[in-house]
Amino acid sequence: MTEFTVLKIGGKVIGDPVATERLCDRISRIKGPCVVVHGGGNLAGELCRRLDIPARVVGGRRITDRETLEVAVMTYAGSVNKKLVAALQRRGVNACGLSGCDLRLITARKRVCDDLDWGWVGDIRWVNLPALLFLLREGIVPVISPVTWGEEGELLNTNADSVATAVAKTLATVGVVDLVFCFDRPGLLRDSGDDTSVIPVLTREMYERERSSGVFHSGMLPKLESAFRALESGVRTVRLALPDDLCHPDRGTVIREL
Amino acid sequence: MTEFTVLKIGGKVIGDPVATERLCDRISRIKGPCVVVHGGGNLAGELCRRLDIPARVVGGRRITDRETLEVAVMTYAGSVNKKLVAALQRRGVNACGLSGCDLRLITARKRVCDDLDWGWVGDIRWVNLPALLFLLREGIVPVISPVTWGEEGELLNTNADSVATAVAKTLATVGVVDLVFCFDRPGLLRDSGDDTSVIPVLTREMYERERSSGVFHSGMLPKLESAFRALESGVRTVRLALPDDLCHPDRGTVIREL
Repeated sequence: MTEFTVLKIGGKVIGDPVATERLCDRISRIKGPCVVVHGGGNLAGELCRRLDIPARVVGGRRITDRETLEVAVMTYAGSVNKKLVAALQRRGVNACGLSGCDLRLITARKRVCDDLDWGWVGDIRWVNLPALLFLLREGIVPVISPVTWGEEGELLNTNADSVATAVAKTLATVGVVDLVFCFDRPGLLRDSGDDTSVIPVLTREMYERERSSGVFHSGMLPKLESAFRALESGVRTVRLALPDDLCHPDRGTVIREL
Repeated sequence: MTEFTVLKIGGKVIGDPVATERLCDRISRIKGPCVVVHGGGNLAGELCRRLDIPARVVGGRRITDRETLEVAVMTYAGSVNKKLVAALQRRGVNACGLSGCDLRLITARKRVCDDLDWGWVGDIRWVNLPALLFLLREGIVPVISPVTWGEEGELLNTNADSVATAVAKTLATVGVVDLVFCFDRPGLLRDSGDDTSVIPVLTREMYERERSSGVFHSGMLPKLESAFRALESGVRTVRLALPDDLCHPDRGTVIREL
């Protein structure tokens, strides 16, 4: 069976040119088909500030009005995506930057809640597996921005962890998938101020037990939920790690069902 | 022999949402493999103004410093490219947005002149024909932004007419190519204030004769030079036309050698 690697690159790594270069070095050493999904971190927020577009944040997530969507598309699909692709191509990786609209790669549905208008935010419905395989079979590394394609043909802003998880789950229907969330910490930390407090393995049971005790930073919870959903859907391994530890499967935090 | 259509979409069409939608309607009716190349027109300049990035223009071309390049990448590769792709996908056209770095589609060389530093501007060296054919054979419509890929792995800003011409010339080595420059006028005008004064056919001889008399708007000269170079390199037809006239090969201005 084909072994796929799906990498999610966090916003803080993306925002650091040196970290991005080091990460691309590591990616160029990955054997076999690989998909990269990136966020944009603070870059979209920074551009919004420069353009005097006010931020509206509810429950940790930014409301995406028309102007914020425009900035997200420019930042994620334009700036971040093309810089990553260029950095990978410099290392001989045949990268191809894509957003959800390209080849209808990722179809989403505009989020509608009774109590809150999220604006142009999409929840993923479908990943175009044939399109993904068409590229991967040619040795191409898709580099996917979190701009998705709405069912009515509009562009939507989607959480990049969700995109990476959806891609991993989809590839798991035809092969073995290892999903790595690359971020700026050496793994899930027991003490967020202490980089040596990495939790090497997190099972569902440990997660349920520790969650209520507040060990995990609240921002980590959606990522961990995504990780467990990916495992449920047949993804072989999920790992949280530093870019430098990408090629060391024993480093970082491994998420496991049991 | 395969017949390819290469479309260059001008900045003023891109900047007009209604014109863009109408254009995408027309593109969806094109039979056979098609490549779309777009500019960004005033959109990058507008964003530069909003961000207080001063414009430096020499000989009608903007000098691309680091910040201007960043804006060009965001605008062309991000905003304009993804909007066009989304509009085409809404009509069932399997579009895929690409910049020069993606699949190393368009390699350029940073322009170096003794008398002037153009900044991050690239002159095209090479179009990746196998990559283009890989997509076209699958029925995919590449939508190409004028962000190219430098020989040292950097992103570069390139004139979109030059990108369209280079793509057309490259495809002409394996098939028959019709190149259409879509813009906001019904063709090349004898009197720039009179839309009924379209010159239906322009030959090289007419061009050389009329150029010195100042009939052509100076901004048209590089486009016309590109058109003649395309014909010399084996492109079958070159035409300047309104988006609405895309599917009427007798409308607009046809550029011919003889």
